[in-house]
Amino acid sequence: MQKMKPRTLSGFMELLPARQAQFEKIAQVLRETYALYGFYPLDTPILEASEVLLAKGGGETEKQIYRFQKGDSDLAMRFDLTVPLAKYVALNYGALTFPFRRFQIGKVYRGERAQRGRFREFYQADIDVIGDGALDIMNEAEIPSIIYKTFSELGLERFKIRINNRKVLNGFFEMLGLTGRASDVMRTIDKLDKIGADAVRDILLEEGVDAAQADEILRFITLGGGTDGILQALERYKGKNETLDAGISELATVAGYMTAFGVPADHFEIDLTIARGLDYYTGTVYETTLLDHPEIGSVCSGGRYDNLAEYYTDKKLPGVGISIGLTRLFYVLQDKNLLSENPPASPADALILPMTDDMGAAIALATRLRAEGIRTQLHCEKKKFKAKISYADKLAIPYVVFMGEDEIANHTVTLKELATGEQTTGDFAAAVSRIQAGLAERARGKVIVEG
Amino acid sequence: MQKMKPRTLSGFMELLPARQAQFEKIAQVLRETYALYGFYPLDTPILEASEVLLAKGGGETEKQIYRFQKGDSDLAMRFDLTVPLAKYVALNYGALTFPFRRFQIGKVYRGERAQRGRFREFYQADIDVIGDGALDIMNEAEIPSIIYKTFSELGLERFKIRINNRKVLNGFFEMLGLTGRASDVMRTIDKLDKIGADAVRDILLEEGVDAAQADEILRFITLGGGTDGILQALERYKGKNETLDAGISELATVAGYMTAFGVPADHFEIDLTIARGLDYYTGTVYETTLLDHPEIGSVCSGGRYDNLAEYYTDKKLPGVGISIGLTRLFYVLQDKNLLSENPPASPADALILPMTDDMGAAIALATRLRAEGIRTQLHCEKKKFKAKISYADKLAIPYVVFMGEDEIANHTVTLKELATGEQTTGDFAAAVSRIQAGLAERARGKVIVEG
Repeated sequence: MQKMKPRTLSGFMELLPARQAQFEKIAQVLRETYALYGFYPLDTPILEASEVLLAKGGGETEKQIYRFQKGDSDLAMRFDLTVPLAKYVALNYGALTFPFRRFQIGKVYRGERAQRGRFREFYQADIDVIGDGALDIMNEAEIPSIIYKTFSELGLERFKIRINNRKVLNGFFEMLGLTGRASDVMRTIDKLDKIGADAVRDILLEEGVDAAQADEILRFITLGGGTDGILQALERYKGKNETLDAGISELATVAGYMTAFGVPADHFEIDLTIARGLDYYTGTVYETTLLDHPEIGSVCSGGRYDNLAEYYTDKKLPGVGISIGLTRLFYVLQDKNLLSENPPASPADALILPMTDDMGAAIALATRLRAEGIRTQLHCEKKKFKAKISYADKLAIPYVVFMGEDEIANHTVTLKELATGEQTTGDFAAAVSRIQAGLAERARGKVIVEG
Repeated sequence: MQKMKPRTLSGFMELLPARQAQFEKIAQVLRETYALYGFYPLDTPILEASEVLLAKGGGETEKQIYRFQKGDSDLAMRFDLTVPLAKYVALNYGALTFPFRRFQIGKVYRGERAQRGRFREFYQADIDVIGDGALDIMNEAEIPSIIYKTFSELGLERFKIRINNRKVLNGFFEMLGLTGRASDVMRTIDKLDKIGADAVRDILLEEGVDAAQADEILRFITLGGGTDGILQALERYKGKNETLDAGISELATVAGYMTAFGVPADHFEIDLTIARGLDYYTGTVYETTLLDHPEIGSVCSGGRYDNLAEYYTDKKLPGVGISIGLTRLFYVLQDKNLLSENPPASPADALILPMTDDMGAAIALATRLRAEGIRTQLHCEKKKFKAKISYADKLAIPYVVFMGEDEIANHTVTLKELATGEQTTGDFAAAVSRIQAGLAERARGKVIVEG
């Protein structure tokens, strides 16, 4: 038979089993943590009508989208989880209870130019809280605190959540009479980390900002002293512009609540240079950076918006949300060697090796081990003993159980821990408690281990 | 602004939040149960190169597939999880350890004619064990026992796993000299339940099977007496055809091992009419029916095959697998009112109502409750008290926690259980243990409740 060469499309992540098991552990931590904060899991189709998905239209999105005709239908694959959420909330408005809290972990599609670390199919992990007409500012502090909790559960420690407030920026530019140019100025400011203050000042002047304004902008965005220091410095700007005043007050409230939510002071900071796109976000905005890998940019971003679904409904639906680019984050963790290999991801806790022809006793033992919550495999293939031990080794299965004539006759279990070579023969209960003690020790490890 | 009417494509399941939470519970039970049997979780792209996905080609599949051009690429959305598995195993053969055990729960796409209960995007939940050159028959007994365990964990009780062996059928037809017509005969036999033995006999005769053969076929496929009875009756057929002998022996072995795997005798039966397509399966085959809903057909099917990936590789990769049509099963459970509403699916265990302007204390309480594993929401919106209680009611959140001046001053927590109206004020530890006791009681409920 003529064979077709098997291949996976470029830009599509497909992992080997042990890697995939690590990815799944991360997804499971996300699901469990999000659930702890009272979010509904949501699932929406990957395919939608193109006109619905592209209601907002325009831009990069439209060029990258996977769009095609099937019969009479013009279909497209979703390119993010926000547009489907907007559609869902508008469509089901009458059936939902607000504030509506949902998380969604799902694949999205963008036909980007293929390059290292860029994916055309990738997971996003989003959380959003949507209000009906109004939404309390508490939510703007809770969202980043969920990210802190999630990253901590994963084992990440060296990260910082940077927050800003769009009202602070908008008010500040209003005050300077630069509202019309805010977009250009923000783009320039964004280069501060890369090119330094002097170069930013030069560009601002070239763009027609006058010298006094440029100095004012640079003074403002380089305010220092940590969260408390910046908030104190911002007090001096109060009373000059209403929007700015509102923004400063919101920033102070959010910072205070984040502490109550358990985010340590060294894991978040105010960064007045963050804007996150100019036409969608209206209040608090977030970015999250890995301290040792600033070059990869924000791994988790979002913010407060006033109108989730304005393309579908007249209802005012303000919300706040954040998104983890899970596939890209995983790629980076893998690339930077931050995924824990100890204990390695194994598909089973115990491997039973039947030493008799009739496998009934070995099978019954597997059934009993599984009833105790021990993930168990049976190895019944006709292979040499050494090959079977090597199988356990390769799959990082920590315990091997031998089931031979003696064990069957004496109702005993012979258990070997591969890492230590320690082998014991005892009753079923003793084997279970030995395995469970070992697993409890292993379960303490996190998925991510830094430096 | 001109609004776009939001809509979801027909044939695409999109659930309201409480329903989706039930779906997720089912998916979680599947993931946990499959893991207990030592399967790796696998994830493969939804999009593949069309030539790779359609290597086998032809038939219904090609007509239903979502296939399109993007740039220079001819792409298609996967229509099952078996072809991507075959591609994966062929592609990664050198990096995998065999037997390779994987489960995959993922969406697949088929552009079927839209009709009630039929979906164009649906989840399949597959488990497969793939051997390298050979695979022990133990696996053919373990696979259905996993389905028994999974369905039982979900709360399903009234179901039966029906097993057969393709060697029994092939050998029997060989013995009758009907090998060339086996396909037609099997199609006719399959109608037995619907049209009865006499009508089946008539059709067989019309198809040119002679009367003695037709009687022999009918006698064979209506053998009764339960698993033991049928196995005993099959003994009489032994010695006439080698393939038949092998099949009968395998059927007996699988039935015996299934008992060792803990499947009760009343939850499986031998059904000699099951064939499951003539060119793929080669050994044990399975179907699973809900006893009270036979009209929906098999909800979980699969079997033993000899060549998983023959379109991609010369390697002989025998395997055994089974697939649950999860979206369709969920639709049926919903339709037949088999999804438990007690306790209803709630996104949180506790809702905190702050009764003071500063929410710091309420937020700190939420953080402490979450640290105890209690899924907690804060309701900070400017709403009347009654509206907030109604919010908890609608979301089926069982406990409401009031945080007012008194509670803050006295370091107490006031806790109300909505179902009973019982309200207590005490310390934090007392509140936690009251909530946890209630949740433990609720956790005993299964997702599915029959009759």
